[in-house]
Amino acid sequence: MRQFDSGQLAQLDASFRRNLINSLPGYKPLQLIGTQNASGVPNLALFSQIIHLGAAPPLIGVLFRPHTVKRDSLENILETRNFTLNQVLPEWHIQAHWTAANWEGSEFEATGLKEERKVGFPAPFVEGSPVQFACMLEEVQTLQINQTVLVIARIEQVFVAEKGLREDGTLDYDALGTVTVTGLDEYHQGQSLGRLSYAKPGIYPSKI
Amino acid sequence: MRQFDSGQLAQLDASFRRNLINSLPGYKPLQLIGTQNASGVPNLALFSQIIHLGAAPPLIGVLFRPHTVKRDSLENILETRNFTLNQVLPEWHIQAHWTAANWEGSEFEATGLKEERKVGFPAPFVEGSPVQFACMLEEVQTLQINQTVLVIARIEQVFVAEKGLREDGTLDYDALGTVTVTGLDEYHQGQSLGRLSYAKPGIYPSKI
Repeated sequence: MRQFDSGQLAQLDASFRRNLINSLPGYKPLQLIGTQNASGVPNLALFSQIIHLGAAPPLIGVLFRPHTVKRDSLENILETRNFTLNQVLPEWHIQAHWTAANWEGSEFEATGLKEERKVGFPAPFVEGSPVQFACMLEEVQTLQINQTVLVIARIEQVFVAEKGLREDGTLDYDALGTVTVTGLDEYHQGQSLGRLSYAKPGIYPSKI
Repeated sequence: MRQFDSGQLAQLDASFRRNLINSLPGYKPLQLIGTQNASGVPNLALFSQIIHLGAAPPLIGVLFRPHTVKRDSLENILETRNFTLNQVLPEWHIQAHWTAANWEGSEFEATGLKEERKVGFPAPFVEGSPVQFACMLEEVQTLQINQTVLVIARIEQVFVAEKGLREDGTLDYDALGTVTVTGLDEYHQGQSLGRLSYAKPGIYPSKI
């Protein structure tokens, strides 16, 4: 095993440390966040700092870096209070990655990803994404320790490809085929090892 | 596409909604959290509500459900201020899942996973895990919206299997072979689609 203690972590080259620390969580949720500003200019950005916050009410958290420079997605969310989350397919994950470039205009136009508009929700979705959901801003918390901004949002509408929805509400990711990320720039597909029964003392979990 | 609007989400069977909402983020970070109480009794629990908070200083967040019933991991962290995170291998992911049962004593003894002790850090690691890191509690925030508890911790020590550490600090998850989770009970392995170059306007990202 290679070891890094706190002193070594502090003295690492900044790029090496950024890569290492971003890689430690392992596979992370990957979503394109669709927003638009009050004038209707759309924005699309790829995020992995996403966390399930609760199912009742249905809540999701997205962490943004410190709000010290222009951050279109965050500003649009604060302005309009709504955004969409859209999972990514392998066929267009390179375009999804490309949304991270410092584009002047709409990332949809720039990267070739297509806007999808749905009745009853102002922010744009990504056409062809098999897992899309629309969110309304509930609360914003700035973490004092590093000034990152935690957006807490309520899940208002969910769209899931039929082939990926099981009878019990779980999603079949082998069928959906969406992409996950490690670190800052590596993308992966998944392969299921199966589901396990509810954990109980004394009964070894079985495949379900 | 199958659609659920906010009214339908609210009226879903609780188990269906829990499965669906927990499945929406996609692949999630999966870590065994090792703690011990002030008397030295160890505890091990599987978590996926984990989020990268920043690289300088190196910070990680773990979300705990409302602190209204006994939650050993959270109580141990509040008491001792330290814990470990350990990624899971396919060979023992069923034991990792089993830690979630309502055990009376140590989950290490109950499930057969082995404690690993390291000099300079009181909390137990999981033997054989190829990505382990030790954390010190920095801050606790209760989210007012649903009373979940966000533990913000500083990464103090990192241990990574040599075969998985690249020269630039990124981790090679095809080499490490650790497991990710979707929903509450489905485990997956990953397969890399490759890394992509830093995103710039006008230059289509290339494999690196």
